[in-house]
Amino acid sequence: MNDNKILLEKFNKDLQNLDFGKSPVRLYDPIYYSLSVGGKRVRPILCLMSTELFGGKYEDSINAAFGIEIFHNFTLLHDDMMDKSLVRRGKPVVHVKWNENIALLSGDAMSVIAYKYICKSNNNLEDILDVFSDTALKICEGQQYDMDFESEANVTEKEYLKMIKLKTAVLLAASLKIGAIAANASKEDCEKIYNFGENLGMAFQIQDDLLDVYGNPEIFGKKIGGDIIANKKTYLLIKALELANEDQKEKLDYWLNKEEFNSEEKIEAVKSIYNEIGIGNLTEQLMNLYFNEAFKIFELLDIDSSRKDILRQFTQSMKKRNY
Amino acid sequence: MNDNKILLEKFNKDLQNLDFGKSPVRLYDPIYYSLSVGGKRVRPILCLMSTELFGGKYEDSINAAFGIEIFHNFTLLHDDMMDKSLVRRGKPVVHVKWNENIALLSGDAMSVIAYKYICKSNNNLEDILDVFSDTALKICEGQQYDMDFESEANVTEKEYLKMIKLKTAVLLAASLKIGAIAANASKEDCEKIYNFGENLGMAFQIQDDLLDVYGNPEIFGKKIGGDIIANKKTYLLIKALELANEDQKEKLDYWLNKEEFNSEEKIEAVKSIYNEIGIGNLTEQLMNLYFNEAFKIFELLDIDSSRKDILRQFTQSMKKRNY
Repeated sequence: MNDNKILLEKFNKDLQNLDFGKSPVRLYDPIYYSLSVGGKRVRPILCLMSTELFGGKYEDSINAAFGIEIFHNFTLLHDDMMDKSLVRRGKPVVHVKWNENIALLSGDAMSVIAYKYICKSNNNLEDILDVFSDTALKICEGQQYDMDFESEANVTEKEYLKMIKLKTAVLLAASLKIGAIAANASKEDCEKIYNFGENLGMAFQIQDDLLDVYGNPEIFGKKIGGDIIANKKTYLLIKALELANEDQKEKLDYWLNKEEFNSEEKIEAVKSIYNEIGIGNLTEQLMNLYFNEAFKIFELLDIDSSRKDILRQFTQSMKKRNY
Repeated sequence: MNDNKILLEKFNKDLQNLDFGKSPVRLYDPIYYSLSVGGKRVRPILCLMSTELFGGKYEDSINAAFGIEIFHNFTLLHDDMMDKSLVRRGKPVVHVKWNENIALLSGDAMSVIAYKYICKSNNNLEDILDVFSDTALKICEGQQYDMDFESEANVTEKEYLKMIKLKTAVLLAASLKIGAIAANASKEDCEKIYNFGENLGMAFQIQDDLLDVYGNPEIFGKKIGGDIIANKKTYLLIKALELANEDQKEKLDYWLNKEEFNSEEKIEAVKSIYNEIGIGNLTEQLMNLYFNEAFKIFELLDIDSSRKDILRQFTQSMKKRNY
């Protein structure tokens, strides 16, 4: 078992042992449920690895890592309500398993619990809180832009990139930065690791868009084509609308406006337009640009190279998510 | 103009000048709207007065006071969604004026913004955060118990009192305690003022239940009888169900189970059963018990009596809310 896996298992075990409260059960059960459904735990792992990278110990940032993961799962819970999703990671979401009110309120409680864990940080609490709150608010902004896009005909690439930066990238960046702050890293190193994380986060989200169309469903873990069915303004769709010739534009509009359709048929049709335009390659190029920028910043960090191994391994494995 | 009013006007003016952000507008506009709709600002005023009581200045707790008021309005925003309310303080609620998703997300953002202001506290930040987070979580618990009660046939007086303690009283208590902490008050004084606030909060909520039935609508500011129409498990209803004779119990059950009714008729019918049983007096007695306990604790505080004037005045005016 490699170091990544050991850390992940340790984190999952510790997370599972947390006691937030018991009563009322309809408040707390959905919280334990949300956190037990799993996930890759990318953010807390990045936080813990960053602490280690800068010479700190697991204990220095484990509470912040809990807070970050709980907050992330809170945003998923409320996002699923807004998106009217029914299933996440193969399990019914909270507002389906219980109801809307319970999902709303247990989400609110999760956000408070997230802060409670953040506040248990021993080192540089005020700095950690600043980063955390600024990031939390940016995530809300990103989610609102994402919802605004649903009713906007023309979303530009620039607007899209700003949205995913807020909605996804800043939390990966903040996780790394908080881990660094907890290890008493210098201000300069904190900024560098944040910058690394932001690029990594951009790559990560663009990869997610790509995998939704071109991923291997068995490895990706969710059904392929969900974004296409929902007309989601992903990088692929935005770029396709920008680059399509008249004929392709007409076909895309046809599928975007069609209210009743066979899902498989729509996915195949849109995918074949993407293929004609070469959207897969374009998206991969942009993703690699961000990954490479991230790795470049990472390698420039003035830290003994062997100490970087575990985080290097982890981020490179992110790049290799299969599709 | 008395000191209370001067403080309230100063607080409202400062609150109105806060800048949380602008874009995306559909995230931030509902936040400014929620806070502009008004209200008595009881919690931040208690916080500021407590700071002054213990020798601190307005600046010592104004940021915490902002945080408390923003958090309170966040809970109202989400509570209104859960209760499917349409109007608050004579204005459409956020999920009506905008939509459910916007209400959900701007509420989430408000809770983060509340923390941002709490974190600007200069003195004893960690202690303040402890009190604030514990309280915030208790409020969620109280709201869940309140929702649970809707589908429970037999809610006891004890369960009801626990619920309002969590949902309402602890935030008044915490506001006072946070104000005291910000003024570097002793641990003992912090506990005393918390205890005072908890009793005051219990009285305040029981009074709210009472005013909903026996209040003067012009002074109370909302329609009378809303709780009766909604079969809300208030102290009055719980006590009436406990004390009703067979005939009264039958009549109460009739109105509780009737699905179609004339509102005025139902209000009058239930109110007349309350009158027969003497529920108004009973409720007033309990309310006064809590008010008197609060005042007793307050007077025992070892602080020069003249310094207590403004807070004494304020809490006594709370007792005199007209009905």
